[in-house]
Amino acid sequence: MTTASWLDLPADSLFGIHNLPYGVFTTPDDPRPRIGVAVGEQVLNVAAVANTVGVDPELTDLLDATTLNPLLGAGRPVWTQVRALLTEWLTDPAFRSAVEPELTPRQDVSLHLPFQVGDYVDFYASEHHAANLGRLFRPGSEPLTPNWKHLPIGYHGRSGTVVVSGTPVVRPQGQRKAPADAVPNFGPSRRLDIEAEVGFVVGAPTELGDSVPLDGFADHVFGVCLVNDWSARDIQAWEYVPLGPFLGKSFATSVSPWVVPLEALRQARVAPPARDVEPLPYLDDRDAKEPWGLDLSLEVRLNGTVVSRPPFAAMYWTAAQQLTHMTVNGASVRPGDLFASGTVSGPDRGTEGALIELTWNGERPVALPDGTTRSFLEDGDEVTITATAPGPDGSVIGFGEVSGRVLPARG
Amino acid sequence: MTTASWLDLPADSLFGIHNLPYGVFTTPDDPRPRIGVAVGEQVLNVAAVANTVGVDPELTDLLDATTLNPLLGAGRPVWTQVRALLTEWLTDPAFRSAVEPELTPRQDVSLHLPFQVGDYVDFYASEHHAANLGRLFRPGSEPLTPNWKHLPIGYHGRSGTVVVSGTPVVRPQGQRKAPADAVPNFGPSRRLDIEAEVGFVVGAPTELGDSVPLDGFADHVFGVCLVNDWSARDIQAWEYVPLGPFLGKSFATSVSPWVVPLEALRQARVAPPARDVEPLPYLDDRDAKEPWGLDLSLEVRLNGTVVSRPPFAAMYWTAAQQLTHMTVNGASVRPGDLFASGTVSGPDRGTEGALIELTWNGERPVALPDGTTRSFLEDGDEVTITATAPGPDGSVIGFGEVSGRVLPARG
Repeated sequence: MTTASWLDLPADSLFGIHNLPYGVFTTPDDPRPRIGVAVGEQVLNVAAVANTVGVDPELTDLLDATTLNPLLGAGRPVWTQVRALLTEWLTDPAFRSAVEPELTPRQDVSLHLPFQVGDYVDFYASEHHAANLGRLFRPGSEPLTPNWKHLPIGYHGRSGTVVVSGTPVVRPQGQRKAPADAVPNFGPSRRLDIEAEVGFVVGAPTELGDSVPLDGFADHVFGVCLVNDWSARDIQAWEYVPLGPFLGKSFATSVSPWVVPLEALRQARVAPPARDVEPLPYLDDRDAKEPWGLDLSLEVRLNGTVVSRPPFAAMYWTAAQQLTHMTVNGASVRPGDLFASGTVSGPDRGTEGALIELTWNGERPVALPDGTTRSFLEDGDEVTITATAPGPDGSVIGFGEVSGRVLPARG
Repeated sequence: MTTASWLDLPADSLFGIHNLPYGVFTTPDDPRPRIGVAVGEQVLNVAAVANTVGVDPELTDLLDATTLNPLLGAGRPVWTQVRALLTEWLTDPAFRSAVEPELTPRQDVSLHLPFQVGDYVDFYASEHHAANLGRLFRPGSEPLTPNWKHLPIGYHGRSGTVVVSGTPVVRPQGQRKAPADAVPNFGPSRRLDIEAEVGFVVGAPTELGDSVPLDGFADHVFGVCLVNDWSARDIQAWEYVPLGPFLGKSFATSVSPWVVPLEALRQARVAPPARDVEPLPYLDDRDAKEPWGLDLSLEVRLNGTVVSRPPFAAMYWTAAQQLTHMTVNGASVRPGDLFASGTVSGPDRGTEGALIELTWNGERPVALPDGTTRSFLEDGDEVTITATAPGPDGSVIGFGEVSGRVLPARG
């Protein structure tokens, strides 16, 4: 693509013409939530432009909404059509007079949860993360459980506590029991952690009883966002056997406000790591023409300091395998379903996506420029996760950020 | 209460004047979903009566809806007010002319999922069930995990696959691995099971960061339904370590179409079993004036034959403790959230709420009158769960049923 925008965006813009992520915004003048597309330093009110230039009324209806859900449910052909329209508006100077009045500086808008979340599923797809957690949670056992390389392990999280970036996170209280304690005690989590993840937003639904094959991924997944799956390690460690994490996770999951369309990630697609256990046929992507490994580079900042750079390309299981596995039993998906990759941790120090790994359970605390150190999060700490991916023509696709500050536990 | 209805209901009606459960129905003449209340053998169109007799327009708006969610969100004082209205309409002959035209025989209506499910959480509150499953899934270990008597263990299920009674259940496919197998294989579940449970429907929401104390239960929970949490034991056994059940459960969860209001269960309240481990203060119900044990008697029918009679009064953890625990970390609840008790199993043979316990992993199959036996479910099998509770004046409160038939796996 050699498209250039009449907006005259800098070549290194993370929200350039090849990105065009979707969100939902309000302005001080107009508190009605509406769909926006980020371009450069501005946000485009897409329904307003659609109304001005006159497009298919069915398309306008999808865009003139308070959440992305109607658009999500419309499916791949419509997503392609809308993206083509956006590109035309932003590149053909004939549309400049219609588009320009509908641009608002990004700094002047408030961003909201861009879609109503249906089911939220969290996977566990980084071999490095799963092995690290296995060593920390189950010392003396094999780090990976026997099923790990046969299926993408996942579980359902709480969709009602998915919040948009910027929402403060109240330190959770709960039951904690250190190995030396005879009985559990109750109080604020002492081991509040993050999980830097990548989230996949489901668009087109399926019927109960059907499943999505590996090559159906792009028909059903609309786009990608960033996720911080806040985790209270002490609560989680005590509660999670035998039915999995619950209160250690359910107090908050933060997502970035911009959903990057799958089309923007064409140049980011890479082969996933070699499959050293033969996958069952429904999960076998070794001969896939278009593997769904994605070369996203994440950064985790703690109070402004970069503490980790997790590489998404190192994830063992792809999002396509996750969607196929999640539906192979006939479970249906809905517009607004969100599934996250699990913590993105690479093989090297400084690439871990959670503090428990980065600080090795507090044994090697992270030093911050103010002279303090962190094993886990303290009240007032702010965590920000960003990511970029390669785009066409040397451009870079940005994901914006998912950020949150820790508030003290309520008394 | 000595109220009598001008409807002249039989004294043993399970949907008598003291019950008045809520659902959503359509008729062949009018496919618009609307709120109905079951009374005797009929269903009352409550919005139609509200419009005819003229009540507070805000109340009419809550009742003139396609799901129970607006009413659920209105909170306890409104629920009480609506119930008083219903009771007045059905007992004061002055309302007969307004009410009678809005009654439809139950056999002539179709019943729908009565509320849009927010988050679905499944607990694990029967000591007998948890111990049985521990023996079967983790032979050689302590049957109960160390945390079991300290907290009500639960996990999030898939809300998008909660279906109303009568919806067929397609046999799920997935990965199964018998202990003797070196690697997993793929195919239809060979160990399809049920879990007879009781579900609690959340009404009034909370804010993120807040929690619901034990004595806030009735302010937030609207009513009670029956749940069949279909389970594929072979899929579950292979996948559930370390993050809990996922595809072994997510293919379908069936609920009864009638939500019995909490007020109808006043006579069913009983003390839960003795707490032989001292609960932490936030869960301590030993001195509660109004404990939330509930004396519900369940029956499980397989192809019409009663195979089990699980006693809900034997559950160790109450629904009030479950709601308090679920929110103690600050997780918010929404109108339409559903949490289920976990399998209801009593201490005696013939009171187990799942086939895996009832047949002890197939070692003692259930004999059916047609001469066949069952270890797990076969294609074409129909499972129906019913329940009753004691009501005032010797009446019996019925829950209707949750029923489903197994369809063969899709090829």
